[in-house]
Amino acid sequence: MDYYSRQISNLIEELSKLPGIGVKSAGRLAFHIIGMSSENVNALADAIRDAKANVHYCKECFTLTDTDICPICADDKRDHSTIMVVENVQDLAAYEKTGKYEGVYHVLHGVISPMAGTGPSDIRLKELVKRLEKEDIKEVIIATGSSLEGETTAMYISKLIKPTGIKVTRIASGVPVGGDLENIDEITLLRALEGRIII
Amino acid sequence: MDYYSRQISNLIEELSKLPGIGVKSAGRLAFHIIGMSSENVNALADAIRDAKANVHYCKECFTLTDTDICPICADDKRDHSTIMVVENVQDLAAYEKTGKYEGVYHVLHGVISPMAGTGPSDIRLKELVKRLEKEDIKEVIIATGSSLEGETTAMYISKLIKPTGIKVTRIASGVPVGGDLENIDEITLLRALEGRIII
Repeated sequence: MDYYSRQISNLIEELSKLPGIGVKSAGRLAFHIIGMSSENVNALADAIRDAKANVHYCKECFTLTDTDICPICADDKRDHSTIMVVENVQDLAAYEKTGKYEGVYHVLHGVISPMAGTGPSDIRLKELVKRLEKEDIKEVIIATGSSLEGETTAMYISKLIKPTGIKVTRIASGVPVGGDLENIDEITLLRALEGRIII
Repeated sequence: MDYYSRQISNLIEELSKLPGIGVKSAGRLAFHIIGMSSENVNALADAIRDAKANVHYCKECFTLTDTDICPICADDKRDHSTIMVVENVQDLAAYEKTGKYEGVYHVLHGVISPMAGTGPSDIRLKELVKRLEKEDIKEVIIATGSSLEGETTAMYISKLIKPTGIKVTRIASGVPVGGDLENIDEITLLRALEGRIII
Protein backbone atom coordinates (compact mmCIF):
# COMPACT_ATOMS: atom_id res chain seq x y z
CA MET A 1 0.00 0.00 0.00
CA ASP A 2 3.07 2.23 -0.11
CA TYR A 3 2.30 2.75 -3.78
CA TYR A 4 -0.69 4.93 -2.92
CA SER A 5 -0.75 8.34 -1.30
CA ARG A 6 -1.18 8.46 2.48
CA GLN A 7 -4.89 9.34 2.30
CA ILE A 8 -5.66 6.42 -0.04
CA SER A 9 -3.66 3.93 2.06
CA ASN A 10 -5.42 5.18 5.15
CA LEU A 11 -8.87 4.84 3.58
CA ILE A 12 -8.07 1.33 2.34
CA GLU A 13 -6.88 0.42 5.85
CA GLU A 14 -10.02 1.76 7.55
CA LEU A 15 -12.35 0.08 5.03
CA SER A 16 -10.55 -3.25 5.33
CA LYS A 17 -11.29 -3.28 9.09
CA LEU A 18 -14.98 -3.76 8.25
CA PRO A 19 -16.29 -7.35 8.33
CA GLY A 20 -16.18 -9.19 5.00
CA ILE A 21 -14.06 -6.52 3.30
CA GLY A 22 -10.54 -7.64 2.40
CA VAL A 23 -7.71 -5.42 1.20
CA LYS A 24 -8.65 -5.91 -2.47
CA SER A 25 -12.33 -4.97 -1.98
CA ALA A 26 -11.23 -2.08 0.23
CA GLY A 27 -9.05 -0.82 -2.63
CA ARG A 28 -11.94 -1.04 -5.07
CA LEU A 29 -14.22 0.77 -2.63
CA ALA A 30 -11.61 3.46 -1.92
CA PHE A 31 -11.14 4.30 -5.60
CA HIS A 32 -14.88 4.28 -6.09
CA ILE A 33 -15.31 6.72 -3.18
CA ILE A 34 -12.63 9.06 -4.56
CA GLY A 35 -14.47 9.03 -7.88
CA MET A 36 -17.85 9.87 -6.27
CA SER A 37 -19.19 13.44 -6.12
CA SER A 38 -18.22 15.43 -3.01
CA GLU A 39 -21.91 15.60 -2.14
CA ASN A 40 -22.26 11.80 -2.12
CA VAL A 41 -19.02 11.35 -0.20
CA ASN A 42 -20.22 13.77 2.48
CA ALA A 43 -23.59 12.00 2.62
CA LEU A 44 -21.79 8.70 3.28
CA ALA A 45 -19.44 10.12 5.93
CA ASP A 46 -22.33 11.96 7.62
CA ALA A 47 -24.52 8.84 7.63
CA ILE A 48 -21.72 6.92 9.38
CA ARG A 49 -21.22 9.58 12.07
CA ASP A 50 -24.92 10.23 12.48
CA ALA A 51 -25.85 6.58 13.01
CA LYS A 52 -23.09 6.15 15.59
CA ALA A 53 -23.92 9.40 17.39
CA ASN A 54 -27.71 9.15 17.53
CA VAL A 55 -28.57 5.48 17.64
CA HIS A 56 -28.59 3.64 20.94
CA TYR A 57 -30.38 0.79 22.71
CA CYS A 58 -34.10 1.02 23.53
CA LYS A 59 -34.36 1.04 27.33
CA GLU A 60 -37.07 -1.62 27.19
CA CYS A 61 -36.23 -4.13 24.46
CA PHE A 62 -32.63 -3.21 23.53
CA THR A 63 -33.31 -2.78 19.84
CA LEU A 64 -31.42 0.10 18.21
CA THR A 65 -33.39 3.34 18.13
CA ASP A 66 -32.95 7.11 18.18
CA THR A 67 -35.56 7.57 20.89
CA ASP A 68 -35.40 6.55 24.57
CA ILE A 69 -38.07 3.94 24.03
CA CYS A 70 -38.35 2.45 20.53
CA PRO A 71 -41.54 2.97 18.46
CA ILE A 72 -42.60 -0.67 19.02
CA CYS A 73 -42.27 -0.51 22.82
CA ALA A 74 -43.96 2.91 22.82
CA ASP A 75 -46.93 1.59 20.82
CA ASP A 76 -49.99 1.09 23.06
CA LYS A 77 -51.75 -0.97 20.40
CA ARG A 78 -49.18 -3.77 20.69
CA ASP A 79 -49.53 -6.66 23.12
CA HIS A 80 -47.02 -5.89 25.86
CA SER A 81 -47.63 -9.20 27.61
CA THR A 82 -45.99 -11.19 24.82
CA ILE A 83 -42.23 -10.88 24.30
CA MET A 84 -40.42 -12.38 21.32
CA VAL A 85 -36.73 -12.97 22.09
CA VAL A 86 -34.50 -12.45 19.02
CA GLU A 87 -30.74 -12.62 18.47
CA ASN A 88 -30.33 -9.25 16.79
CA VAL A 89 -32.02 -6.21 15.27
CA GLN A 90 -32.09 -7.74 11.77
CA ASP A 91 -34.14 -10.69 13.08
CA LEU A 92 -36.56 -8.26 14.73
CA ALA A 93 -36.90 -6.45 11.39
CA ALA A 94 -37.53 -9.79 9.64
CA TYR A 95 -40.50 -10.50 11.95
CA GLU A 96 -41.78 -6.93 11.66
CA LYS A 97 -41.83 -7.33 7.88
CA THR A 98 -44.41 -10.10 8.26
CA GLY A 99 -46.73 -7.44 9.72
CA LYS A 100 -48.49 -10.17 11.72
CA TYR A 101 -46.70 -10.19 15.07
CA GLU A 102 -48.46 -7.94 17.55
CA GLY A 103 -46.36 -8.45 20.66
CA VAL A 104 -43.11 -6.75 21.63
CA TYR A 105 -39.50 -7.90 21.42
CA HIS A 106 -36.35 -8.45 23.43
CA VAL A 107 -33.07 -8.23 21.52
CA LEU A 108 -30.27 -10.37 22.99
CA HIS A 109 -27.48 -8.98 20.78
CA GLY A 110 -25.86 -12.36 20.43
CA VAL A 111 -26.21 -16.02 21.32
CA ILE A 112 -24.56 -18.24 23.88
CA SER A 113 -21.54 -19.75 22.13
CA PRO A 114 -18.91 -21.54 24.21
CA MET A 115 -16.78 -21.84 21.03
CA ALA A 116 -16.76 -18.05 20.55
CA GLY A 117 -16.40 -17.46 24.30
CA THR A 118 -19.84 -15.84 24.57
CA GLY A 119 -21.57 -16.78 27.83
CA PRO A 120 -25.05 -15.94 29.21
CA SER A 121 -23.70 -12.75 30.79
CA ASP A 122 -22.43 -11.46 27.43
CA ILE A 123 -25.93 -11.14 25.97
CA ARG A 124 -28.95 -9.15 27.24
CA LEU A 125 -30.31 -11.98 29.38
CA LYS A 126 -30.40 -10.41 32.81
CA GLU A 127 -32.30 -7.51 31.24
CA LEU A 128 -34.88 -10.01 29.98
CA VAL A 129 -35.21 -11.56 33.45
CA LYS A 130 -35.67 -8.08 34.92
CA ARG A 131 -38.50 -7.38 32.46
CA LEU A 132 -40.20 -10.64 33.41
CA GLU A 133 -40.04 -9.70 37.09
CA LYS A 134 -41.22 -6.15 36.56
CA GLU A 135 -43.84 -6.43 33.82
CA ASP A 136 -46.93 -8.63 33.54
CA ILE A 137 -45.74 -11.08 30.87
CA LYS A 138 -47.92 -13.97 29.72
CA GLU A 139 -45.72 -15.53 27.03
CA VAL A 140 -42.09 -15.51 25.95
CA ILE A 141 -41.55 -16.67 22.36
CA ILE A 142 -37.96 -17.73 21.77
CA ALA A 143 -37.04 -16.89 18.18
CA THR A 144 -33.27 -17.42 18.23
CA GLY A 145 -31.94 -19.13 15.08
CA SER A 146 -31.90 -22.88 14.56
CA SER A 147 -28.09 -23.06 14.61
CA LEU A 148 -26.43 -25.01 17.44
CA GLU A 149 -25.83 -21.71 19.27
CA GLY A 150 -29.39 -20.54 18.68
CA GLU A 151 -30.75 -23.83 20.07
CA THR A 152 -28.39 -23.75 23.07
CA THR A 153 -29.53 -20.21 23.84
CA ALA A 154 -33.20 -21.18 23.48
CA MET A 155 -32.71 -24.12 25.90
CA TYR A 156 -30.89 -21.91 28.39
CA ILE A 157 -33.58 -19.23 28.35
CA SER A 158 -36.34 -21.81 28.56
CA LYS A 159 -34.79 -23.37 31.71
CA LEU A 160 -34.28 -19.90 33.16
CA ILE A 161 -37.91 -18.85 32.69
CA LYS A 162 -39.78 -22.11 33.35
CA PRO A 163 -39.66 -21.75 37.20
CA THR A 164 -41.51 -18.40 36.95
CA GLY A 165 -44.55 -20.16 35.45
CA ILE A 166 -44.56 -17.85 32.41
CA LYS A 167 -45.46 -19.71 29.20
CA VAL A 168 -42.33 -20.26 27.07
CA THR A 169 -42.65 -21.17 23.38
CA ARG A 170 -40.18 -21.75 20.55
CA ILE A 171 -40.78 -20.85 16.88
CA ALA A 172 -41.22 -23.98 14.74
CA SER A 173 -38.40 -25.56 12.76
CA GLY A 174 -39.29 -27.21 9.47
CA VAL A 175 -39.28 -27.03 5.71
CA PRO A 176 -39.35 -23.41 4.46
CA VAL A 177 -42.50 -22.60 2.49
CA GLY A 178 -41.80 -23.17 -1.21
CA GLY A 179 -38.73 -25.21 -0.28
CA ASP A 180 -37.78 -28.19 -2.42
CA LEU A 181 -37.36 -31.24 -0.14
CA GLU A 182 -34.44 -32.46 -2.23
CA ASN A 183 -32.32 -29.44 -1.32
CA ILE A 184 -33.05 -29.40 2.39
CA ASP A 185 -30.63 -30.85 4.95
CA GLU A 186 -31.50 -34.01 6.89
CA ILE A 187 -31.72 -32.35 10.29
CA THR A 188 -34.32 -29.89 9.00
CA LEU A 189 -36.25 -32.76 7.38
CA LEU A 190 -36.26 -34.67 10.70
CA ARG A 191 -37.39 -31.54 12.55
CA ALA A 192 -40.22 -31.11 10.06
CA LEU A 193 -41.24 -34.75 10.62
CA GLU A 194 -41.09 -34.48 14.44
CA GLY A 195 -43.08 -31.25 14.36
CA ARG A 196 -45.80 -32.62 12.04
CA ILE A 197 -49.38 -31.50 12.70
CA ILE A 198 -52.76 -33.07 11.95
CA ILE A 199 -54.47 -31.47 8.92
CA MET B 1 -36.05 -0.66 5.95
CA ASP B 2 -38.90 1.11 7.71
CA TYR B 3 -38.26 -1.23 10.61
CA TYR B 4 -35.07 0.61 11.51
CA SER B 5 -34.65 4.13 12.86
CA ARG B 6 -34.07 6.88 10.28
CA GLN B 7 -30.30 7.01 10.90
CA ILE B 8 -29.89 3.26 10.44
CA SER B 9 -32.02 3.21 7.26
CA ASN B 10 -30.02 6.14 5.93
CA LEU B 11 -26.68 4.46 6.68
CA ILE B 12 -27.84 1.23 5.04
CA GLU B 13 -28.96 3.21 2.01
CA GLU B 14 -25.66 5.08 1.66
CA LEU B 15 -23.59 1.91 2.12
CA SER B 16 -25.65 -0.04 -0.40
CA LYS B 17 -24.78 2.56 -3.08
CA LEU B 18 -21.19 1.30 -2.97
CA PRO B 19 -20.20 -1.25 -5.63
CA GLY B 20 -20.58 -4.89 -4.62
CA ILE B 21 -22.54 -4.07 -1.46
CA GLY B 22 -26.17 -5.18 -1.50
CA VAL B 23 -28.83 -4.23 1.03
CA LYS B 24 -28.07 -7.28 3.21
CA SER B 25 -24.32 -6.62 3.40
CA ALA B 26 -25.07 -2.92 3.95
CA GLY B 27 -27.24 -3.92 6.94
CA ARG B 28 -24.47 -6.08 8.39
CA LEU B 29 -21.95 -3.26 7.90
CA ALA B 30 -24.29 -0.66 9.41
CA PHE B 31 -24.84 -2.68 12.60
CA HIS B 32 -21.13 -3.38 12.80
CA ILE B 33 -20.38 0.37 12.50
CA ILE B 34 -22.90 1.24 15.23
CA GLY B 35 -21.18 -1.32 17.46
CA MET B 36 -17.70 0.11 16.82
CA SER B 37 -16.04 2.57 19.23
CA SER B 38 -16.70 6.26 18.50
CA GLU B 39 -12.98 6.65 17.87
CA ASN B 40 -12.97 4.01 15.14
CA VAL B 41 -16.18 5.36 13.59
CA ASN B 42 -14.64 8.85 13.41
CA ALA B 43 -11.45 7.42 11.91
CA LEU B 44 -13.51 5.77 9.17
CA ALA B 45 -15.62 8.86 8.43
CA ASP B 46 -12.51 11.09 8.45
CA ALA B 47 -10.63 8.74 6.12
CA ILE B 48 -13.50 8.90 3.64
CA ARG B 49 -13.67 12.72 3.68
CA ASP B 50 -9.90 13.13 3.72
CA ALA B 51 -9.30 10.90 0.70
CA LYS B 52 -12.00 12.69 -1.29
CA ALA B 53 -10.82 16.18 -0.26
CA ASN B 54 -7.07 15.77 -0.70
CA VAL B 55 -6.53 13.22 -3.42
CA HIS B 56 -6.59 14.31 -7.07
CA TYR B 57 -5.02 13.46 -10.41
CA CYS B 58 -1.28 13.90 -10.99
CA LYS B 59 -0.92 16.63 -13.66
CA GLU B 60 1.53 14.44 -15.58
CA CYS B 61 0.40 10.83 -15.43
CA PHE B 62 -3.12 11.08 -13.94
CA THR B 63 -2.52 8.67 -11.10
CA LEU B 64 -4.15 9.68 -7.80
CA THR B 65 -1.92 11.71 -5.52
CA ASP B 66 -2.02 14.38 -2.82
CA THR B 67 0.69 16.45 -4.53
CA ASP B 68 0.52 18.39 -7.82
CA ILE B 69 2.94 15.97 -9.45
CA CYS B 70 3.01 12.41 -8.07
CA PRO B 71 6.18 11.03 -6.41
CA ILE B 72 6.90 8.82 -9.44
CA CYS B 73 6.69 11.67 -11.98
CA ALA B 74 8.69 13.90 -9.61
CA ASP B 75 11.49 11.32 -9.29
CA ASP B 76 14.54 12.34 -11.37
CA LYS B 77 16.04 8.88 -11.05
CA ARG B 78 13.25 7.33 -13.13
CA ASP B 79 13.39 7.04 -16.90
CA HIS B 80 11.03 9.74 -18.14
CA SER B 81 11.40 8.64 -21.77
CA THR B 82 9.50 5.38 -21.15
CA ILE B 83 5.78 5.54 -20.41
CA MET B 84 3.76 2.51 -19.31
CA VAL B 85 0.06 2.95 -20.09
CA VAL B 86 -2.19 1.29 -17.49
CA GLU B 87 -5.96 1.08 -17.04
CA ASN B 88 -6.12 2.25 -13.45
CA VAL B 89 -4.22 3.14 -10.29
CA GLN B 90 -4.36 -0.42 -8.96
CA ASP B 91 -2.55 -1.70 -12.06
CA LEU B 92 0.12 0.97 -11.59
CA ALA B 93 0.54 -0.20 -7.98
CA ALA B 94 0.83 -3.82 -9.17
CA TYR B 95 3.79 -2.89 -11.43
CA GLU B 96 5.37 -0.72 -8.73
CA LYS B 97 5.28 -3.71 -6.38
CA THR B 98 7.62 -5.58 -8.75
CA GLY B 99 10.20 -2.86 -7.97
CA LYS B 100 11.77 -3.48 -11.40
CA TYR B 101 10.07 -0.95 -13.66
CA GLU B 102 12.07 2.26 -13.87
CA GLY B 103 10.02 4.28 -16.33
CA VAL B 104 6.97 6.43 -15.64
CA TYR B 105 3.24 5.76 -16.16
CA HIS B 106 0.12 7.08 -17.79
CA VAL B 107 -3.17 6.12 -16.14
CA LEU B 108 -6.10 5.91 -18.57
CA HIS B 109 -8.84 5.53 -15.92
CA GLY B 110 -10.75 3.05 -18.02
CA VAL B 111 -10.70 1.14 -21.26
CA ILE B 112 -12.48 1.56 -24.56
CA SER B 113 -15.65 -0.49 -24.29
CA PRO B 114 -18.40 -0.04 -26.89
CA MET B 115 -20.60 -2.36 -24.79
CA ALA B 116 -20.32 -0.07 -21.77
CA GLY B 117 -20.52 3.04 -23.94
CA THR B 118 -16.94 4.10 -23.12
CA GLY B 119 -15.23 5.64 -26.14
CA PRO B 120 -11.65 6.91 -26.66
CA SER B 121 -12.67 10.38 -25.45
CA ASP B 122 -13.90 8.98 -22.11
CA ILE B 123 -10.43 7.86 -21.02
CA ARG B 124 -7.23 9.91 -20.60
CA LEU B 125 -6.05 9.35 -24.17
CA LYS B 126 -5.75 12.91 -25.47
CA GLU B 127 -3.64 13.65 -22.39
CA LEU B 128 -1.31 10.80 -23.41
CA VAL B 129 -1.05 12.18 -26.95
CA LYS B 130 -0.22 15.62 -25.50
CA ARG B 131 2.59 14.09 -23.42
CA LEU B 132 4.01 12.38 -26.49
CA GLU B 133 4.01 15.69 -28.39
CA LYS B 134 5.51 17.69 -25.55
CA GLU B 135 8.01 15.31 -23.95
CA ASP B 136 10.88 13.33 -25.45
CA ILE B 137 9.41 9.83 -25.30
CA LYS B 138 11.31 6.81 -26.66
CA GLU B 139 8.91 3.98 -25.79
CA VAL B 140 5.28 3.52 -24.86
CA ILE B 141 4.56 0.18 -23.16
CA ILE B 142 0.87 -0.68 -23.33
CA ALA B 143 -0.09 -2.59 -20.18
CA THR B 144 -3.87 -2.62 -20.42
CA GLY B 145 -5.42 -5.95 -19.39
CA SER B 146 -5.80 -8.92 -21.71
CA SER B 147 -9.61 -8.71 -21.71
CA LEU B 148 -11.36 -7.89 -24.98
CA GLU B 149 -11.62 -4.24 -23.89
CA GLY B 150 -7.97 -4.15 -22.80
CA GLU B 151 -6.88 -5.55 -26.18
CA THR B 152 -9.15 -3.16 -28.09
CA THR B 153 -7.69 -0.24 -26.17
CA ALA B 154 -4.15 -1.47 -26.78
CA MET B 155 -4.80 -1.73 -30.54
CA TYR B 156 -6.37 1.72 -30.62
CA ILE B 157 -3.44 3.34 -28.79
CA SER B 158 -0.93 1.47 -30.92
CA LYS B 159 -2.53 2.77 -34.16
CA LEU B 160 -2.70 6.26 -32.68
CA ILE B 161 1.00 6.37 -31.76
CA LYS B 162 2.59 4.42 -34.64
CA PRO B 163 2.60 7.45 -37.05
CA THR B 164 4.73 9.43 -34.57
CA GLY B 165 7.57 6.92 -34.93
CA ILE B 166 7.68 6.31 -31.15
CA LYS B 167 8.35 2.64 -30.28
CA VAL B 168 5.13 0.99 -29.03
CA THR B 169 5.28 -2.31 -27.12
CA ARG B 170 2.70 -4.52 -25.43
CA ILE B 171 3.28 -6.57 -22.27
CA ALA B 172 3.39 -10.31 -23.01
CA SER B 173 0.40 -12.59 -22.64
CA GLY B 174 1.07 -16.16 -21.57
CA VAL B 175 0.99 -18.72 -18.81
CA PRO B 176 1.35 -17.12 -15.35
CA VAL B 177 4.52 -18.20 -13.52
CA GLY B 178 3.68 -21.17 -11.31
CA GLY B 179 0.48 -21.69 -13.28
CA ASP B 180 -0.77 -25.20 -13.87
CA LEU B 181 -1.39 -25.66 -17.64
CA GLU B 182 -4.44 -27.79 -16.90
CA ASN B 183 -6.28 -24.88 -15.26
CA ILE B 184 -5.49 -22.24 -17.86
CA ASP B 185 -7.97 -21.26 -20.56
CA GLU B 186 -7.34 -22.11 -24.21
CA ILE B 187 -6.89 -18.54 -25.42
CA THR B 188 -4.10 -17.96 -22.90
CA LEU B 189 -2.47 -21.26 -23.92
CA LEU B 190 -2.57 -20.22 -27.59
CA ARG B 191 -1.14 -16.80 -26.71
CA ALA B 192 1.68 -18.49 -24.79
CA LEU B 193 2.38 -20.70 -27.83
CA GLU B 194 2.32 -17.77 -30.28
CA GLY B 195 4.62 -15.76 -28.04
CA ARG B 196 7.15 -18.56 -27.54
CA ILE B 197 10.82 -17.58 -27.38
CA ILE B 198 14.04 -19.49 -28.13
CA ILE B 199 15.78 -20.68 -24.95
